[in-house]
Amino acid sequence: MSEQIDKSAGWVTFDPELKIVDCTVRDGGLINAHQFENGFFKKVYDTCVESGIDYMEVGYKADKKLFSTKDNGPWKFSTEEDIRREVGENDSNLKLCVMADAGRTNLDDLLPRKESVLDMIRVATYVHQLPAALEIVKDAKQKGYEVALNLMAVSTVPDFELDHALDVIKEVPEVDVLYVVDSYGSLYYEQIDDLISRYKKTGKMLGIHAHNNQQLAYANTIYAAINGVKLLDTTMMGMGRGAGNCATELMVGFLKNPKFNLRPILKFVQETMLPMSQEMDWGYSVPYMVTGHYNEHPRSAIALRGGDRKDDYLGFYDEIASP
Amino acid sequence: MSEQIDKSAGWVTFDPELKIVDCTVRDGGLINAHQFENGFFKKVYDTCVESGIDYMEVGYKADKKLFSTKDNGPWKFSTEEDIRREVGENDSNLKLCVMADAGRTNLDDLLPRKESVLDMIRVATYVHQLPAALEIVKDAKQKGYEVALNLMAVSTVPDFELDHALDVIKEVPEVDVLYVVDSYGSLYYEQIDDLISRYKKTGKMLGIHAHNNQQLAYANTIYAAINGVKLLDTTMMGMGRGAGNCATELMVGFLKNPKFNLRPILKFVQETMLPMSQEMDWGYSVPYMVTGHYNEHPRSAIALRGGDRKDDYLGFYDEIASP
Repeated sequence: MSEQIDKSAGWVTFDPELKIVDCTVRDGGLINAHQFENGFFKKVYDTCVESGIDYMEVGYKADKKLFSTKDNGPWKFSTEEDIRREVGENDSNLKLCVMADAGRTNLDDLLPRKESVLDMIRVATYVHQLPAALEIVKDAKQKGYEVALNLMAVSTVPDFELDHALDVIKEVPEVDVLYVVDSYGSLYYEQIDDLISRYKKTGKMLGIHAHNNQQLAYANTIYAAINGVKLLDTTMMGMGRGAGNCATELMVGFLKNPKFNLRPILKFVQETMLPMSQEMDWGYSVPYMVTGHYNEHPRSAIALRGGDRKDDYLGFYDEIASP
Repeated sequence: MSEQIDKSAGWVTFDPELKIVDCTVRDGGLINAHQFENGFFKKVYDTCVESGIDYMEVGYKADKKLFSTKDNGPWKFSTEEDIRREVGENDSNLKLCVMADAGRTNLDDLLPRKESVLDMIRVATYVHQLPAALEIVKDAKQKGYEVALNLMAVSTVPDFELDHALDVIKEVPEVDVLYVVDSYGSLYYEQIDDLISRYKKTGKMLGIHAHNNQQLAYANTIYAAINGVKLLDTTMMGMGRGAGNCATELMVGFLKNPKFNLRPILKFVQETMLPMSQEMDWGYSVPYMVTGHYNEHPRSAIALRGGDRKDDYLGFYDEIASP
C-alpha cells in the first residue's frame, strides 16, 4: 500500500491537480472503426467544455500509409483539418490530445504545437516497443507538446522487465506523464497500488486508464486518484472497446472540484450515448469478466459478443479456461 | 486505513475463513415480491451446492399477520414447510440462512434449530430499532442458530450514534457476525474502511453486504475481504433491488479457495438469470448512481425505472439535486 495522503479525492476538500481526460471518441471509436455519425464529435466536445473536463482525446494519429481511410473514420487519423472543422481554434479551457501508437505513427504528421490545436500527445506502447515510442515522445516534446506515455498490457510483463523500462523512462525528461494502463481489465486495487508504487519511482506525474471487465474501472480510478495519480481517463457512459472504461459521469460525480458540472454529461449520455449503447455492444458482461480473470486480451470476448453465440458464457469460459 | 494482513484474498494463498453468502432469492425477491417461477429456488440451491457457496439466504421470515400471502411469494415468509419442499433435509455442505427484519418478525415463527433446516438467522435493523433487533438476536441464539446482525443505512447515521450502537453490540455475545451494509450503494473504499475499523472494535466476525449503485459493489467487497471481513454477500448476476449487489460470479472468480467452482454459476447465469434480467430491471444505471451519490434510499430511482420516464437521467438528477 502506498503512503496515504491527507487530501482524499472523496472528501469535501479536493485536489486541484486531478484532471479528467475524456477518451470517448478515441477508445469508443475502437468499437466502430471511428465511423461516428456526423455531429457526434462536436457533441462530445461541447459536453466536455461545458462540464469542465480537462482534456478530450480526439482520436488516434495513425499513419494513412498503414490504415485505410475507407475502412476507418476520420478520428483514426485526426488530421489538423478535421479537428479544426469541429473545434475551430478551440477557444475554451478544454485541452485536446491525441493518441500516437508506437509503430503506427508518421512523425511528419505531427505539426509543431504552435500550428496545431492539439495540446498533448499520448504515446501508446507495449513495453517491448519502448525505444520506438520514445522517438515519438522526443519528437512531440521537441515540437512543443505536453507528452504522456501509456505503457500497455503491463499485466503480462514480468516485474524485472517492467522495472527496467521504468528505469529507462525515468531518464527521459520529455515524458511529462506516465500512465498506468489496465489494458485487459484484469487488475484490482492491490495490483494497481503495486504499479503506482513502481511508477512513482520515475518521479513522473502519473495517469490511469482502466477497463471495466470486472466492474472495477471506476473503483481502480478512484483508488489511483486517492493515491497520487493525477490524470484520470474516462469515457461517456464508459464507451470503449470490450467492457469499456471508467464512466465520465461516475468520475465527475465523485470529484469535488466545483469546476466540474455533471448536468451537461447526463444530458449527453441520455440523448446520445444511451441510444448508441442499444445499437452497439460495450460494457461489462461475463465474457469480459472471464478474459479479465485470465489476464487475456479481450479480443476473443469481443469476437464472441459480435457473433451468434454472444451469451454462451459457459462455452466461452470452457474455451478460455482450457489449458 | 486498517492494518494490512499478510494473506491477500487476491493471491494464490487464500483465507479459508472467507465465506460467500448468496442472497439471490432474498434480495432479488425485492424486485418481484418474491414471486419467482416454480423451480427457480431449487436451481439457485443446486447451483450454490455445486459451486461450493457457503451460505444461501432463502428469503425473509416476515410475519404473515403483517404481510399478505397473496401479494407476496413464499420466500417473503420462508416457512419450514416451503424450505423443506425444495431442499429436503439439506444433505449438503451449504448452510441456509434467512433474514428476519426487526419489527416484522414473529418470534413464534422461529423454530428451534434442531427442528429446522436453517442454520443462521440474519437480523436486519436500522440503528434506531436496535433494541427490537437484539430481542430477535437473543431468541435466535437461544434456539441454537448462528446469528448475524445487519445494520442498515448506516451511511445516514452520525458517527457518535453508530459508535454507541457498536458499544451496545459489543456487549451482546449472541451476535456472532456483524454486517457492514451499504444500503444505498453510496460508499467507496475509504468509507468502507472507516466502517470496518469501527466495527472491528466490537470483536465480532464481520460481514459485508454491498450495493452496486456506483459500480462499486464488487470493489468494496474485495476491499472488505482483504481487510478482515469474512462473510461476503453476493447474488447471481448481481440480482437485487435497484442497482443490485456484488455478483456471485465475480466473487467466485476472484477467491482462490479451490472449493469454489465457477462453472455451475456461469451455467445458471446464462440459462436462468440472463433471460430474467431481460424481463426485469436491476443493475447499475444512472438514476441509481445519482441516489448513491446523494446517499439516498433508491426508492425514487426504482420508481423512475418502473415508469415511462425510466431513462430521463437529467430530469431525475434535477429532482434529486434540487435542495
